[in-house]
Amino acid sequence: MQTFAEPASPWHVAGRRLWLNEVGPRDGFQVEPVFVPTADKIALIDALSALGFAKIEATAFVSPKAVPALADAAEVMRGIRRAPGVVYAALVPNARGAEAAIAAGADELNLVMSASETHNLANLRMTREQSFAQFGAVVALARAAGRAVNVSLSCSFGCPMEGEVAAAEVLGWVERFTGELGVTRVALCDTTGMAFPPQVEALVGAVLTRWPGLELTLHFHDTRGLGLANLLAAAGAGATRFDMALGGLGGCPYAPGATGNVCSEDVVHALALMGYDTGIDLEGLIAASRRLPALIGRETPGQVAKAGRRLDLHAPPAGPEAVRARRP
Amino acid sequence: MQTFAEPASPWHVAGRRLWLNEVGPRDGFQVEPVFVPTADKIALIDALSALGFAKIEATAFVSPKAVPALADAAEVMRGIRRAPGVVYAALVPNARGAEAAIAAGADELNLVMSASETHNLANLRMTREQSFAQFGAVVALARAAGRAVNVSLSCSFGCPMEGEVAAAEVLGWVERFTGELGVTRVALCDTTGMAFPPQVEALVGAVLTRWPGLELTLHFHDTRGLGLANLLAAAGAGATRFDMALGGLGGCPYAPGATGNVCSEDVVHALALMGYDTGIDLEGLIAASRRLPALIGRETPGQVAKAGRRLDLHAPPAGPEAVRARRP
Repeated sequence: MQTFAEPASPWHVAGRRLWLNEVGPRDGFQVEPVFVPTADKIALIDALSALGFAKIEATAFVSPKAVPALADAAEVMRGIRRAPGVVYAALVPNARGAEAAIAAGADELNLVMSASETHNLANLRMTREQSFAQFGAVVALARAAGRAVNVSLSCSFGCPMEGEVAAAEVLGWVERFTGELGVTRVALCDTTGMAFPPQVEALVGAVLTRWPGLELTLHFHDTRGLGLANLLAAAGAGATRFDMALGGLGGCPYAPGATGNVCSEDVVHALALMGYDTGIDLEGLIAASRRLPALIGRETPGQVAKAGRRLDLHAPPAGPEAVRARRP
Repeated sequence: MQTFAEPASPWHVAGRRLWLNEVGPRDGFQVEPVFVPTADKIALIDALSALGFAKIEATAFVSPKAVPALADAAEVMRGIRRAPGVVYAALVPNARGAEAAIAAGADELNLVMSASETHNLANLRMTREQSFAQFGAVVALARAAGRAVNVSLSCSFGCPMEGEVAAAEVLGWVERFTGELGVTRVALCDTTGMAFPPQVEALVGAVLTRWPGLELTLHFHDTRGLGLANLLAAAGAGATRFDMALGGLGGCPYAPGATGNVCSEDVVHALALMGYDTGIDLEGLIAASRRLPALIGRETPGQVAKAGRRLDLHAPPAGPEAVRARRP
């Protein structure tokens, strides 16, 4: 194995710890047209629990009419085995969802609104002020029950309908989440894949400079092939927590056929090669990802589950026919 | 539009010029099971000629039995319209191929061998020394005909059968190409997607330090999702020339289902957002890529052709049903 010791390289970061969140069971399964059986969801989350993730977003307590794929949210949240040290999160759209999530044992309630007024209106059918007003009740419920709250701000890097979203807009919402609501966990989300590295670097830098104690998560999708680059740019700017989905599950409603969340096993494979310490069992992660096509009835976009790790070697071809088949 | 001015950022490189080579017509089509009609190949290359590429690898003068998809190499090379300033290259395996490529008007002959003995034996059925010995005749033919030669060194970043390939091995072959053959153009190739950023950075730095005048090209595949990161690491280390394929065409014989070359339009889209000057007409490139599925009968892995550029906006959904369909 070659060693690389240039200290100034942005491509080699010896031993820096990152904390990774698996969101596939929620952000991935919610867009699948098939209903993954509850027992299979639980088995998958139990397998993921052993792999070293800091957080697993297990499900969403939303209307089963709106998201039939996650109609079994309570059974899933009650059925999983909790690994010590892992935060089990659930997305909740409102106080009713929060009550159900708390009753089912969610450690963290994940609230979502958009930095873009048009996107919030289109996807949540509320103004941003209406979304924000709802958050107060959820935060109070969580606090009373001793649960954590994370606010996810969609369109932090652009809106597919409005276009650019100003950094000042994002900072203003983080100010209100932390100041008015007392929230300590915020995710800046790029569900539609509009983020790009210099923008990510600048925004993450600005947020961490102003709120050094914030538990900041970055949530990138690979819609335009920039997911890993964005994640690395964010890490370079000081971010340490990242959402990702097994197999690259998830999708973008504005880009049919495009990939979803950054792929957990591809990201873990890449980060390990750059010297980051993720604490993740990559072999176990690849094995879990390889079970996905049987669960959802389609191939996933992730690469490492197909190609193996870079040093998973192959036997030389046996004869001319095999050579022809492997023509470079 | 936000502006980003941190001078120390590896993610924003204001105005630095890169030269991009489109290799899809050769490295892509050669692995497709369908024969793309000659007229369609010519029309595609003619369209690509107008988009700003430095080089287009148009075809390969190889055995039509081994690579039936490129059996029309001479017709393609003769049929295309040459744009001024664009280098039209052809892969040639030996002197016979070189003669045919020269006769058909190729500007540059691209020779291939592997830095790995096992890979060279498996894929070219020769030792590396035998491959190298053949190169002399091709170089002599090219020189007599006033054509350029590029040597592509496969497995420069690892061999799928041997594992690690030492940097010293790669440097040793570059020394022989430049010294014994007098070649001035070399491509370091990662056909099987084993490269990773700190390795790329170190190897590119070592090559450019030793041969500052070399016309060095980097050829990355996205087999394990590291293609763009590797390209950026190479650019950061001083490389300025890169191979890529429209739609992410191409493949890796050791990873069925994995993606191929780094995708031209995804790379151009990403580089533009990071401030690089590629000289490429991205809109035209996306349009060309969108014609590929009709030519090859399958979807391509490229993302930007599906999702559009980051500021290609969408109209807000018209009603609740449309909102549901676009659920985030």
